[in-house]
Amino acid sequence: MSAGWFRRRFLPGEPLPAPRPPGPRASPVPYQRPRFLRGSCSSPGAAEASRRPDSRPVRSPARGRALPWNAGYAEIINAEKSEFNEDQAACGKLCIRRCEFGAEEEWLTLCPEEVILGLNPSYSLGSGWVRQTFLTGHYWALFDGHGGPAAAILAANTLHSCLRRQLEAVVEGLVATRPPMHLSGRCICPSDPQFVEEKGIKAEDLVIGALESAFQECDEVIGRELEASGQVGGCTALVAVSLQGKLYVANAGDSRAILVRRDEIRPLSSEFTPETERQRIQQLAFVYPELLAGEFTRLEFPRRLKGDDLGQKVLFRDHHMRGWSYKRVDKSDLKYPLIHGQGRQARLLGTLAVSRGLGDHQLRVLDTNIQLKPFLLSVPQVTVLDVDQLELQEDDVVVMATDGLWDVLSNEQVAWLVRSFLPGNQEDPHRFLKLAQMLIHSTQGKEDGLTGEGQVSYDDVSVFVIPLHSQGQDSNGP
Amino acid sequence: MSAGWFRRRFLPGEPLPAPRPPGPRASPVPYQRPRFLRGSCSSPGAAEASRRPDSRPVRSPARGRALPWNAGYAEIINAEKSEFNEDQAACGKLCIRRCEFGAEEEWLTLCPEEVILGLNPSYSLGSGWVRQTFLTGHYWALFDGHGGPAAAILAANTLHSCLRRQLEAVVEGLVATRPPMHLSGRCICPSDPQFVEEKGIKAEDLVIGALESAFQECDEVIGRELEASGQVGGCTALVAVSLQGKLYVANAGDSRAILVRRDEIRPLSSEFTPETERQRIQQLAFVYPELLAGEFTRLEFPRRLKGDDLGQKVLFRDHHMRGWSYKRVDKSDLKYPLIHGQGRQARLLGTLAVSRGLGDHQLRVLDTNIQLKPFLLSVPQVTVLDVDQLELQEDDVVVMATDGLWDVLSNEQVAWLVRSFLPGNQEDPHRFLKLAQMLIHSTQGKEDGLTGEGQVSYDDVSVFVIPLHSQGQDSNGP
Repeated sequence: MSAGWFRRRFLPGEPLPAPRPPGPRASPVPYQRPRFLRGSCSSPGAAEASRRPDSRPVRSPARGRALPWNAGYAEIINAEKSEFNEDQAACGKLCIRRCEFGAEEEWLTLCPEEVILGLNPSYSLGSGWVRQTFLTGHYWALFDGHGGPAAAILAANTLHSCLRRQLEAVVEGLVATRPPMHLSGRCICPSDPQFVEEKGIKAEDLVIGALESAFQECDEVIGRELEASGQVGGCTALVAVSLQGKLYVANAGDSRAILVRRDEIRPLSSEFTPETERQRIQQLAFVYPELLAGEFTRLEFPRRLKGDDLGQKVLFRDHHMRGWSYKRVDKSDLKYPLIHGQGRQARLLGTLAVSRGLGDHQLRVLDTNIQLKPFLLSVPQVTVLDVDQLELQEDDVVVMATDGLWDVLSNEQVAWLVRSFLPGNQEDPHRFLKLAQMLIHSTQGKEDGLTGEGQVSYDDVSVFVIPLHSQGQDSNGP
Repeated sequence: MSAGWFRRRFLPGEPLPAPRPPGPRASPVPYQRPRFLRGSCSSPGAAEASRRPDSRPVRSPARGRALPWNAGYAEIINAEKSEFNEDQAACGKLCIRRCEFGAEEEWLTLCPEEVILGLNPSYSLGSGWVRQTFLTGHYWALFDGHGGPAAAILAANTLHSCLRRQLEAVVEGLVATRPPMHLSGRCICPSDPQFVEEKGIKAEDLVIGALESAFQECDEVIGRELEASGQVGGCTALVAVSLQGKLYVANAGDSRAILVRRDEIRPLSSEFTPETERQRIQQLAFVYPELLAGEFTRLEFPRRLKGDDLGQKVLFRDHHMRGWSYKRVDKSDLKYPLIHGQGRQARLLGTLAVSRGLGDHQLRVLDTNIQLKPFLLSVPQVTVLDVDQLELQEDDVVVMATDGLWDVLSNEQVAWLVRSFLPGNQEDPHRFLKLAQMLIHSTQGKEDGLTGEGQVSYDDVSVFVIPLHSQGQDSNGP
């Protein structure tokens, strides 16, 4: 339990998942159906490099991809701290079908392989069988794995299906002016619409609910799959969904999304780490002290206490405190802290740097039977950006990235890079892809003429650049 | 369990506390030592009026008081929904003494009866005995009782003492540039100051911690006192403390404080009700389902479900959801909801309209053994206003009031009244008192020429108006 571990804990000797075939490479391909980036890239000498923590990462081939529907541009880089890239990404078009709502819940797959564009909201309550009404949206997701790439790969292959299923289960409510109290459209009580209105329930609340449920469902799938295959690991998840003129950003972990406009930088997510969720985690340990098995102290101190501190009054805080106070140190305070370390070094139970995410069902504190999963939440926080209400400019983008980027670049620096790059490259059809690449290069200590500061990230780094202006339009790109 | 109960539940037949002598009346008195308003006013016919829920309140004598140190102006009105005023208030000067930190913790009461003004931060680490160093601050508190005034009266008499004790226990850290890791000033580990700095711990965090602890201590005192005297009840608590150039606002309940300046309205508190704390309350019921004794459902629905809803898919949300989804109704969903009703009608366990506060240790759901206290928090949320950083104008004020005011006036309306009243009355030494009175009059449906809308509050109403500009100065008032 030293403070010198990798950013994410990697269990020595832990079996790695079998290598998967690399996903489609950087050259753009015509859109056919939702196709998800499954990249897990390796390169010669990676395993050796991972044993040299001070070594600079060797860049694996850049995996940028420009999608013809202009929906976003991904760039992923493997810092080679582990043999396989622990960052995974997925993006595609979401096609939400309407289901028949009879007792059998039979799904009508009217044209499952067709490319469905646009929205036909011709909805009426009480119809017996569905018509060919579809909702389409876009989906982008970044997964930052730890303890191996297995959970991140599973999440990249699974979460969009969970989300589509959850959205399809409520699509009747999504396309109504206001979600009905009863999904069937029946009105048991005459004032049911008023009850829904008083609660302020809107269609966007169903999308938020669907995202929350999809994350939980995906977490259960990952738990079953990892157990069945004898694998381990977990991942953070950052998902953006464009639907009905709104952008939903769901985050569980320490990745981040921001909106960058000419004169605005707006955070679209918050990070969930042992520090930011201290009170929730301490509260759980207060309610269930047996989770700490007598080996950890729930209290926070400025540093780990030692024998010399016994009897002294030291700064501390407990689950109910946002402020600090002093307490007299007794023997139980000398235990290892439930949350220990500061900033990037902060760890939950000495083990994990994030407090929300998917997987980690089997993760235990080294050499103990103490589980981390009870302290982790799979449910994301969801932010809604009303894109239709923005007066969009050509260069308005959302930047989504794993913590490898944000560890070395601030929101302001990223916005500066975006604003420096895009206006001078308006004719370049690859400019958003190049911007994603340039953002990643900026984390590799390259003197790029923009920051010139040579920041270095030793973590895997993944970036999506999503141009808001062209959403839903056909691509002018390659 | 109907929705037609009073705003706060009043148990029929519940023994009322014995009337207390009225506090000092409205005429200003010279400052001598912290003197706390203990008003519990009654008027003829009050008991009868309380049995006529549709009757308009009869105003009891206004209890305004201008303090010579210009620290604030209180106005309290009894809506007579109960025999005794359930709103209570306290204000005074806080005098924080330094304690000796030896093993005995003997308090040095060097000049206990003197009026101590100003701050002498001549602090040095490691001194054996304290010198005559004092911190002084101001304290204002509003308590809105329910189930009788007993808890509110106890809180008005007790909380300031708890706070002073908590502040005195950490005063060594308060007057240091940065709170030391060890209260004694000893440095066990050479880099202790760096650990404290890395955590960003500042003196204001000790005040926040002291407020949090004081609320909890006061809650315990109230629990013991009510049990010993066979009384019942609870209250909300809104406290403002001015100390070392900062204003701390601690809130547990549904009172509210706002800062009103010429071109700014800044909320200084948030309300804690079953609606705003839904997820915390549902989470607790999820962890401890036995708290609901099989009589309530944890889930939220737009309305209470009934037999006709069985088998239907209806809107719902659970503890982990900010969004909404649909579920198929089963028999257990027909139970009474843990949180029921909307807006001002929302109730916890069909009983209580607030989710934080003091007291209520014995409160149970009518005709059951189901306790409410496990769902209530006594810990406040604390907001810090850095008054020294504001370029204060003569008319900048903080308005603190119980929900009786905010139920009928918005922040914007209150700010409009403040800005309409103060500039034209700059020569009036009683203008802040008159403003507090005028705000209360505005809740009584009086056509006052300002709002002209005749809003009516049937609740007790209490208001403090705190002029920020003159804080710490001697009064020019009466």
